[in-house]
Amino acid sequence: MSEGKIWTAALVVIGDEILSGRTQDKNIAQLASWLNVQGIRLREVRVVADVPGSIGDAVIAMIADYDYVFTTGGIGPTHDDITVDSIAAALGVGVVIHPDARATLERYYETRGGLTEARLRMARVPEGSDLIVNKMSGAPGIRRGNLFILAGVPHITAGMLDALTGTLEGGRPLVSVTIGGFVPESEVADLLGATEKAHVGVSIGSYPFFKEGRVGANFVVRSEDIGQAEACSNQLTAALEERGYAITAGGI
Amino acid sequence: MSEGKIWTAALVVIGDEILSGRTQDKNIAQLASWLNVQGIRLREVRVVADVPGSIGDAVIAMIADYDYVFTTGGIGPTHDDITVDSIAAALGVGVVIHPDARATLERYYETRGGLTEARLRMARVPEGSDLIVNKMSGAPGIRRGNLFILAGVPHITAGMLDALTGTLEGGRPLVSVTIGGFVPESEVADLLGATEKAHVGVSIGSYPFFKEGRVGANFVVRSEDIGQAEACSNQLTAALEERGYAITAGGI
Repeated sequence: MSEGKIWTAALVVIGDEILSGRTQDKNIAQLASWLNVQGIRLREVRVVADVPGSIGDAVIAMIADYDYVFTTGGIGPTHDDITVDSIAAALGVGVVIHPDARATLERYYETRGGLTEARLRMARVPEGSDLIVNKMSGAPGIRRGNLFILAGVPHITAGMLDALTGTLEGGRPLVSVTIGGFVPESEVADLLGATEKAHVGVSIGSYPFFKEGRVGANFVVRSEDIGQAEACSNQLTAALEERGYAITAGGI
Repeated sequence: MSEGKIWTAALVVIGDEILSGRTQDKNIAQLASWLNVQGIRLREVRVVADVPGSIGDAVIAMIADYDYVFTTGGIGPTHDDITVDSIAAALGVGVVIHPDARATLERYYETRGGLTEARLRMARVPEGSDLIVNKMSGAPGIRRGNLFILAGVPHITAGMLDALTGTLEGGRPLVSVTIGGFVPESEVADLLGATEKAHVGVSIGSYPFFKEGRVGANFVVRSEDIGQAEACSNQLTAALEERGYAITAGGI
């Protein structure tokens, strides 16, 4: 049962390659899992085209609605990397070369052909920003207040999240218990609804699947309190077994 | 280079299981690829929580901005399936049992225990809707004007898209040519920008990767005209090879 503030976040994926279907996004799931550990709930994701107005509008809207806003993508050295400029314009601030980012890039490229004009683009930040360390490839992520501008390549995004671990204020993580079985969800819909209603502070998600030619579902019991989630999941398991279904802890 | 109208679409993913990080979304990439074949551009995606207001607000906003709007998820028989009610409320219309959906479900469940109250939920549609055939599991998708309410389980979503293939008005599909190599994108940023600028109607996306311990990038040349995309890609390949990079057609 929730006590105190629930911290929320949104993600803006900058993303022609996602919208074209060429690339399967991995950052939504990655950020969602990471946020949950921080005690922060991912509440909304927007995938927008590589268009300045679309990026800016989405970021501004999300800042108004959530405690933390993350973006992924579009912070590299090429002409299609327009995230920093788009966000700065939307915020009404200038773009500056961050001296620490410049120094980091100078070191990184010292033995790799030097800091060219294109590479220096990766030191540009919206005025008033701090840096997020990127151990992978030198070019840093950017933090401006509660806005976090991250790389789009998933393992670099992961490195930046790693650098942020434990630095954001959050609440209690949401925990979940999953059970599953070859249960057609339409046969137990009444039971799911009644069980959720009987357990305040707990939600039950029902996720159908088809496997080995049979219909089944996993039921995910979520709560801020592991004890409550387990109590609810135990009761649901017992009720399903009473109806003759074999239930697997952890889901199928 | 565009001639005539560019048809646009948006997707609203209804999606606690995506936002929790539990499930990796597959419908964004699936819908994006399908739309492209129909000559329609996916321009925006929103992943929203299983909350009526969030679903309704997103759908209304997307309808105002794009030619077609799709939703995935939340149309099953259980208590957490609230998509139809949320959209109907946002549109200001009632929810009705669609007689054809009822008949379909009666046939489907005839040998599976009959049409219970929970299963009948899957025949409920916003007033004024038509059905989208679902060969996989009986419960239909829903079309209301240019709004398409689809299932969330990816292979059922796929079946519904299959039923819609060729029925939506679109323009020319965007085609792409991909080349790639172990090219640090920061070394060729100038070339990419200049090549794109020299080819009107063509865009070049640069997607860095790390593989076998080396830095590289794929360059995706997109256009409505395959001839223009190929001309641009050939010129870019020649220019990269002139700088000493080995380039692979199709990308790495």
